[in-house]
Amino acid sequence: MSTTENPETTARRRGRRPAGQDTRTALVEAARAVFAENGYDGATVRAIATRAGVDAAMVNHWFGSKEGLFAHAVLELPFDPLELQAALRDGPAHELGERIVRTFLTRWDGAGGDVFQALIRSITGHEQAGRVLRDFFQRFFTALITSIGSDRIPLRMTLCASQLVGMGMIRYVAKFEPMTTADIETLVRAVAPNLQRYLTGDIG
Amino acid sequence: MSTTENPETTARRRGRRPAGQDTRTALVEAARAVFAENGYDGATVRAIATRAGVDAAMVNHWFGSKEGLFAHAVLELPFDPLELQAALRDGPAHELGERIVRTFLTRWDGAGGDVFQALIRSITGHEQAGRVLRDFFQRFFTALITSIGSDRIPLRMTLCASQLVGMGMIRYVAKFEPMTTADIETLVRAVAPNLQRYLTGDIG
Repeated sequence: MSTTENPETTARRRGRRPAGQDTRTALVEAARAVFAENGYDGATVRAIATRAGVDAAMVNHWFGSKEGLFAHAVLELPFDPLELQAALRDGPAHELGERIVRTFLTRWDGAGGDVFQALIRSITGHEQAGRVLRDFFQRFFTALITSIGSDRIPLRMTLCASQLVGMGMIRYVAKFEPMTTADIETLVRAVAPNLQRYLTGDIG
Repeated sequence: MSTTENPETTARRRGRRPAGQDTRTALVEAARAVFAENGYDGATVRAIATRAGVDAAMVNHWFGSKEGLFAHAVLELPFDPLELQAALRDGPAHELGERIVRTFLTRWDGAGGDVFQALIRSITGHEQAGRVLRDFFQRFFTALITSIGSDRIPLRMTLCASQLVGMGMIRYVAKFEPMTTADIETLVRAVAPNLQRYLTGDIG
């Protein structure tokens, strides 16, 4: 934000609201500031829209939801989380692990390993980013695990996080062979049953 | 190395070899330089000892092995890897996953989460450190998995890495609850069967 004017101030001074891509950019910048100040749960769509000087409906128009805006603005995730969650729920519960592993690898491979590396750096470098990512991951996986009726949701959520973050670390950041160059289906066969146990199995 | 004289030069000029803690310090500094220049596999005990101006036997005396020196000097691991490997091999193969998870958590909890965080930062920040850690982890786990007679050792090694690095990331770096405060035995029950599958199970 330091190199640009506050979009809200700009919009007000000009006497109009920014349009199109300007709106999108203003929302992304406002979202970064509001998420950083208030955390994920404390940030409201209304507060972000107000700071951006645009109508709150623009958040849904451009990003689908608060989650979507967060994913783009803060995590710079290469996908929309709500759309992704709908896709992951579409299938039997006993194959959810497989769908998650395949989707995780397909999306992050598609985005390029650098994007995952940047995400990990933001966790290790900034307490704030770690907290926000944690809120986000927790919501995402809690909704998924709740939808399949499992118990011990918080522990299962963190176990899933440990496997997925670890797989991303080894494939995209630390780059241990053969995990870095293995084809996606090889890793689905190897990792999905473990993720499935965390989602629906006996975890002690 | 920039704030101290080259220990080899110092030792030669004084006409004697450094003794006791001086030897240890000289070896750590020489090891950091030689591992950085040549990688883990390319660095020899002889080259490190020569640079430190001490006898190669001092490496075994102070660190047990090249692995031990590496663990202290570069990774700053809070344990000796060879001693650890011997301890992990001491028990039935079908409980190796349980021993690894319990030992991993006990040692890193004991060292304090900051030490693990520093290790992750060194991977994400420096290509060199990532390569050296990869060599090290690969040797450590290849030896363990070979000792229990499993097939597909490189893939199993990286699968184990993904789970252990991920568990450390979530417990010590990203700090997702309840994994951060869960007691060790809860996590052993939850995670060990997954690690065991990577070590000895059908991985597709």
